[in-house]
Amino acid sequence: MVSVGGRLGLEGEFVEADLPLLVRRAGMAEWQDDRVRILDRRALPLVEQYLECRSAEEVAVAIEDMVIQGAFSLSIAAGYGLALAAMNGPGNLKSIRSAADRLLKTRPTGLALKRMIEACVQRAGAAIQSGRRPAEAIISTVDEAAATLARQGWKTGQRAAALLEDGSSVLTHCFPDRSYVYMLMEASRAGKRLNIICSETRPYMQGARLTSLCAQQAGFDATVITDGMGGFLMRRGDIGAFVTAADRVCMDGTVCNKIGTYQYALAASANDVPYFTLRQSGPDRESADENDIEVELRPGDALLYCGKERTAPPGVQGLYPAFDITPADLVTAIVTDRGVFEPSRINTYFDANSFVADAIL
Amino acid sequence: MVSVGGRLGLEGEFVEADLPLLVRRAGMAEWQDDRVRILDRRALPLVEQYLECRSAEEVAVAIEDMVIQGAFSLSIAAGYGLALAAMNGPGNLKSIRSAADRLLKTRPTGLALKRMIEACVQRAGAAIQSGRRPAEAIISTVDEAAATLARQGWKTGQRAAALLEDGSSVLTHCFPDRSYVYMLMEASRAGKRLNIICSETRPYMQGARLTSLCAQQAGFDATVITDGMGGFLMRRGDIGAFVTAADRVCMDGTVCNKIGTYQYALAASANDVPYFTLRQSGPDRESADENDIEVELRPGDALLYCGKERTAPPGVQGLYPAFDITPADLVTAIVTDRGVFEPSRINTYFDANSFVADAIL
Repeated sequence: MVSVGGRLGLEGEFVEADLPLLVRRAGMAEWQDDRVRILDRRALPLVEQYLECRSAEEVAVAIEDMVIQGAFSLSIAAGYGLALAAMNGPGNLKSIRSAADRLLKTRPTGLALKRMIEACVQRAGAAIQSGRRPAEAIISTVDEAAATLARQGWKTGQRAAALLEDGSSVLTHCFPDRSYVYMLMEASRAGKRLNIICSETRPYMQGARLTSLCAQQAGFDATVITDGMGGFLMRRGDIGAFVTAADRVCMDGTVCNKIGTYQYALAASANDVPYFTLRQSGPDRESADENDIEVELRPGDALLYCGKERTAPPGVQGLYPAFDITPADLVTAIVTDRGVFEPSRINTYFDANSFVADAIL
Repeated sequence: MVSVGGRLGLEGEFVEADLPLLVRRAGMAEWQDDRVRILDRRALPLVEQYLECRSAEEVAVAIEDMVIQGAFSLSIAAGYGLALAAMNGPGNLKSIRSAADRLLKTRPTGLALKRMIEACVQRAGAAIQSGRRPAEAIISTVDEAAATLARQGWKTGQRAAALLEDGSSVLTHCFPDRSYVYMLMEASRAGKRLNIICSETRPYMQGARLTSLCAQQAGFDATVITDGMGGFLMRRGDIGAFVTAADRVCMDGTVCNKIGTYQYALAASANDVPYFTLRQSGPDRESADENDIEVELRPGDALLYCGKERTAPPGVQGLYPAFDITPADLVTAIVTDRGVFEPSRINTYFDANSFVADAIL
């Protein structure tokens, strides 16, 4: 962190060049004239390469292929993907809706994608009715949402950083996206020394590849462990806090996040380690409890390989639920842009003051 | 299981050709004239290849390189390795002790290795004193121990199979060695249908590679999951029993096993899934409680890769404790050759009747 000037990040607080790559504009998905440019997260951390998508279908496949992941980041890519459909197709609402359906099918569990696509379709419809170009309406909707997400993430990260003790080890699972990265930036700014323990997160290794990279880029030491090790470290007293994102939080405080989270939450609870769930935009009004969550089953073949190496014998199956469910009583606090909530009181999020109006996601 | 005759396995019960490869003689480590032949477990399940070691040092390196693993199996390899030192060296007790020290250093956590090596050194010393060849004394000591282990494993597997319900799904972690395989053979013989869920066990993937192979070879369907998924499946009610081996059981019922076991034991306890620990030869008298266990730290670099693929950025560290500790109150029962014990009463193992006298390990 040596820059003293330059363009600010989408959150309007940090110099963009000082931010870890994954929360810079380029690190999510960017609209560029006639294409969507997406950082290929699968190639990180060793290679920084970008995929240029020129159709909604290409964006949908990129999301399905895990080029981009994280409920919010992939929603931005999907939104811009819809703009491609509006720009290249007949431009009527029917064709836009058809592309929207395709994009919605990519990942069923998070609601951010659904909200982004619905908002974009609505604005496109309004644009068509008033004789404006639907693609432009969609692009500005996504631009706005991306900036709002960044500001919400920053605010959430600020609140989360305040919960961490100087000198402690912070265990995380998967890549908890921008709130987590801003948490690291704010902790660093406050002079806290943290040791970041990244659970590798099989089979896509987001913890090993993305979280550790962000921790380094934010100025901290990072250590990778397997998904089976966090409990042992917690029991040994080596972990000060367990922090994850959430793909969805229900109104009763239930947390849905990357598979593996539940086991760590159990271990945290058993060993008096606080578990903080970062969910920048609060709970989902439409999800009363876990019965409203559909846990995505991804193709199990991914589990028959380690990297490119086949590990399981022919005839063996892989089972790959992508998320799991953590009941509210295992969560210490849910950290949002509007405040830090006890899980059982997360439904009061909507009564709390918002510093960003009208967040889509 | 179609053979109707042929050589019996070391346990004296099943036709050897009907047994899964890993519990056949060739699947552990075999003495052959002037060398030790070790099945290379790292190449399984796709390739069946053998390493031929001609010195104790080669055997030690094979153990360190995970060519063979599992507390008991590697002890057999180590014992035969010591015979190589006795045969090829000056044949005095000093040189045998020096090779013994080298072999003991390969893996510090399990006690079977220590006991095997100590028994071999003792018998070699007695042989030298009475003018017999120490190598032959060592080989017969290991042969005897291997047969005893197989019989103990079979008896343990028989008791464990009786605990499993027909039609249930059995979750396991890592490769729980011969007791587990005999459990599958006995369950199959009793006509039980089991669905075997194998937690892949990063970073060496013994669950994906070895356990699933044995489950198939014993006639069951096998499914691979990552090390973060078992808790979710247990919470969803999909798992009938959680079964592992133990690298060590303390006199107070504490279980030391492959890293990741503790998290699953927590999840089993939270979801009323029975957790059965297979420990064919009972607790270790020398281990009163977990304070007597040294948890081996293996080189952390293994965690910076997925297969041969580098996943973590340069500068990030890997932390690799190979085992974890599960307190007795999370264990439903410890299954041994002498009976099924409540963990808090495992110290009565030594009062129970043994059907094999004088087990070394």
